[in-house]
Amino acid sequence: MSQEMFQKERTLKMRERLIGQSCRLFFPQDPVKIVRARGQYLYDENGTQYLDCISNVHHVGHCHPLVTQAASAQMELLNANARFLHDNIVHYAERLAATLPKKLCIFYFVNSGSEANDLALRLARQYTRNEDVIVLDHAYHGHLTSLIDISPYKFRKLEGQKEWAPLPDTYRGLYRRDHPNPGQAYADTVKDLIDEAQRKGRKISSFFVESLPSVGGQVILPSGYFPKVAEYVRAAGGVFVADEVQTGFGRVGSHFWAFQLQGEDFCPDIVTMGKPMGNGHPLSCVVTTEEIAGAFTANGVEYFNTFGGNPVSCAIGLAVLDVMEKEDLRGNAVRVGNHLKELLKQLQAKHPIIGDVRGVGLFVGLELVKDRVTLTPATEEAALLVGRLKMKHICLSTDGPWNSVIKFKPPMCFSLEDAERVSAEISHVCESDYCTSVFLQNLKMPPTRNNRNNSPVYMQPANLLMRLIAKLE
Amino acid sequence: MSQEMFQKERTLKMRERLIGQSCRLFFPQDPVKIVRARGQYLYDENGTQYLDCISNVHHVGHCHPLVTQAASAQMELLNANARFLHDNIVHYAERLAATLPKKLCIFYFVNSGSEANDLALRLARQYTRNEDVIVLDHAYHGHLTSLIDISPYKFRKLEGQKEWAPLPDTYRGLYRRDHPNPGQAYADTVKDLIDEAQRKGRKISSFFVESLPSVGGQVILPSGYFPKVAEYVRAAGGVFVADEVQTGFGRVGSHFWAFQLQGEDFCPDIVTMGKPMGNGHPLSCVVTTEEIAGAFTANGVEYFNTFGGNPVSCAIGLAVLDVMEKEDLRGNAVRVGNHLKELLKQLQAKHPIIGDVRGVGLFVGLELVKDRVTLTPATEEAALLVGRLKMKHICLSTDGPWNSVIKFKPPMCFSLEDAERVSAEISHVCESDYCTSVFLQNLKMPPTRNNRNNSPVYMQPANLLMRLIAKLE
Repeated sequence: MSQEMFQKERTLKMRERLIGQSCRLFFPQDPVKIVRARGQYLYDENGTQYLDCISNVHHVGHCHPLVTQAASAQMELLNANARFLHDNIVHYAERLAATLPKKLCIFYFVNSGSEANDLALRLARQYTRNEDVIVLDHAYHGHLTSLIDISPYKFRKLEGQKEWAPLPDTYRGLYRRDHPNPGQAYADTVKDLIDEAQRKGRKISSFFVESLPSVGGQVILPSGYFPKVAEYVRAAGGVFVADEVQTGFGRVGSHFWAFQLQGEDFCPDIVTMGKPMGNGHPLSCVVTTEEIAGAFTANGVEYFNTFGGNPVSCAIGLAVLDVMEKEDLRGNAVRVGNHLKELLKQLQAKHPIIGDVRGVGLFVGLELVKDRVTLTPATEEAALLVGRLKMKHICLSTDGPWNSVIKFKPPMCFSLEDAERVSAEISHVCESDYCTSVFLQNLKMPPTRNNRNNSPVYMQPANLLMRLIAKLE
Repeated sequence: MSQEMFQKERTLKMRERLIGQSCRLFFPQDPVKIVRARGQYLYDENGTQYLDCISNVHHVGHCHPLVTQAASAQMELLNANARFLHDNIVHYAERLAATLPKKLCIFYFVNSGSEANDLALRLARQYTRNEDVIVLDHAYHGHLTSLIDISPYKFRKLEGQKEWAPLPDTYRGLYRRDHPNPGQAYADTVKDLIDEAQRKGRKISSFFVESLPSVGGQVILPSGYFPKVAEYVRAAGGVFVADEVQTGFGRVGSHFWAFQLQGEDFCPDIVTMGKPMGNGHPLSCVVTTEEIAGAFTANGVEYFNTFGGNPVSCAIGLAVLDVMEKEDLRGNAVRVGNHLKELLKQLQAKHPIIGDVRGVGLFVGLELVKDRVTLTPATEEAALLVGRLKMKHICLSTDGPWNSVIKFKPPMCFSLEDAERVSAEISHVCESDYCTSVFLQNLKMPPTRNNRNNSPVYMQPANLLMRLIAKLE
């Protein structure tokens, strides 16, 4: 297969002409054309190698040969739909069940994290017969109509008038690390929302939460938060849905699922999974309890998902689990994640702009602030850093409400050397004269204000980057 | 790859234990385990071959080697997400654009027909700023929360209190083949709904319709219907959405898209596509006009679909188009579809139970009736026929509001000989004494009644079949 069909300029023009512009590119002012990838490395049309720190989907490494082989072998043999009996779907469900608390034992296979979250919503509503959903501020649970309704990250920009619980961010949130029990305190904010909803005569179907909020800014939740929230939500007749679409499959290293960081005894009522599951193949899943699945069956309506659980998708899912075990990728996530955090904390000690370093396993965030007391988000500086690292052929991106958190969610084969390389380059950017000057003195571009609610609107990272680069060169 | 991991009985037990029971099996009383497939043939764990008359998803034939090769080659090379620039997505969009009216030129790639229809709904609502959707009775547009809201086939069973336009079924509907202009008459029913909605102060965002209603009973729409409905819907400020998830990609033979049967000049505002697109791989798409895409971009919110439009999905989509052309599968659909209809019409002339034979290309329906005057649906007989054909190793199934329509939507490589085989077997069932007697005399099992609305509830085909077989043997 030829690696390039069109010259890059032509590809870009065709894309602008043919693909909806709501589908954005990375580095939109100077997009990267990637034609080949292996492990944690991407290659552009000239053969230039990029270190990939963000493709959490390509969990066991881009184009892992064992995954490709499993897919090809099954594609040659059979890819019928799941209305025929087949071994792969049941074998895969059994393998997944072995990673989960016993109570979570009924599986539904679908094609995307969004489909999984939508089905979770249907399960929760059918089981509880209630409608309302409580979510966290800045949450994102998918691109479907039903999910935008429960994703402040999206619907705020569209309507800006729904309610959500505060994000339990102990770095800059309502209760911080100096609070004696932030888990309890944040759980109580959910309790308050429930009470308020009930006073209005509304009933709670569910609490939806990412086990580690991702677009919210790579947030590590305080201990005790989930068990307490689950207690409140269940008392109100609702169920607890853990969205593991970004965080599952051993990314946190010490555990297979990030919700397990909240204690071995804690068990959600529904768990959704997605991105890393098929190493890039569209494969996702919902798992729940017998009671909840039973209520869904009892409505008498078939659930048919055309591609969900087909033999090829399941063969790929099984291969991903095999590679994770064979290559001890959870162990690697612990080792490399800890080393990366250590290196970043050393940088934090030297550079005041690095306000926080946090993470578990290979889910790591580096939060930039203009000032360590006010914690003013260093949005422009984060964009600049990402842009400078791109020039060094390292792919990173930002997250969080102000795009001031540098996120690391690399393929799980990310190495100690990769961690050292990226940390050295960050250090270099932070130390270089021009950069320090840009960071700390010259950059006086106040954000514009949103007409409707006067909230600050920061420039798109890429636009800003181009202006800064123009200044520097 | 070994073809069987577990004994069939064990697979079934594991499935009952691990997979949500809302996910039903074909032939639930005696499910078929399929371990291998090629072209239009399925093979069970004992090597028994089944003729597949229903897998429209496996469009160019199960496990087509060119599709598998294209997938494997691209999986080895790259499967990054569509935020990086890549040739496959733009090349594929251009190839699809060549099959569509010029106006339909902006593409969004997603993973399932349901995701496509949900996005179409978002596009329509964003563009028109209206909410209401008009659908046809018995329509099914997907399994997502937003789509069950617009799918009478599903929501009737759940709530039974929404509104929809009558299904333009000229065999048993409001206006029949003896009507001078059923297309206009049915279009006027949509106009009436629009008027009523507007009197209530509601505003129409869209008319959603399958270009040939499938679960509604393999219905061929009367000519003139779409252009007239589109005129009414647009005059009310709405857009016309053609759901081609089941019917697109040349299934009708004479045209690439089934909406084109309504005239070369007719052009929907949005088209959704899915099932056959990736020959079993989760791949779907929405195409729309520049104006509608522009309105969606203008809301400022990114649309990101993790797997949508990735290089592997697009390589597979391209391979499907290549095979269709190389093997002239549209030509085959015309030839074989016509022959199949001809053979079935010969059976109709002999057997009063065959009330109607209809179809275009390889989208064919055979409607069974207890009586050609009253058109009482022959639900039990249809279940029996499907069951008897299964014993002859032919996979068929029923559709339509009363499961009385035998549907043919085979892989597009279905042959003249396959058509002859299935028609001969149907003939054999219709002719055999025991069957005639079951069909026409002995079967006096009136349907039970739904408590809520007194509509007839027919037995599940498989349960019924087992009772009948028990009687006969």
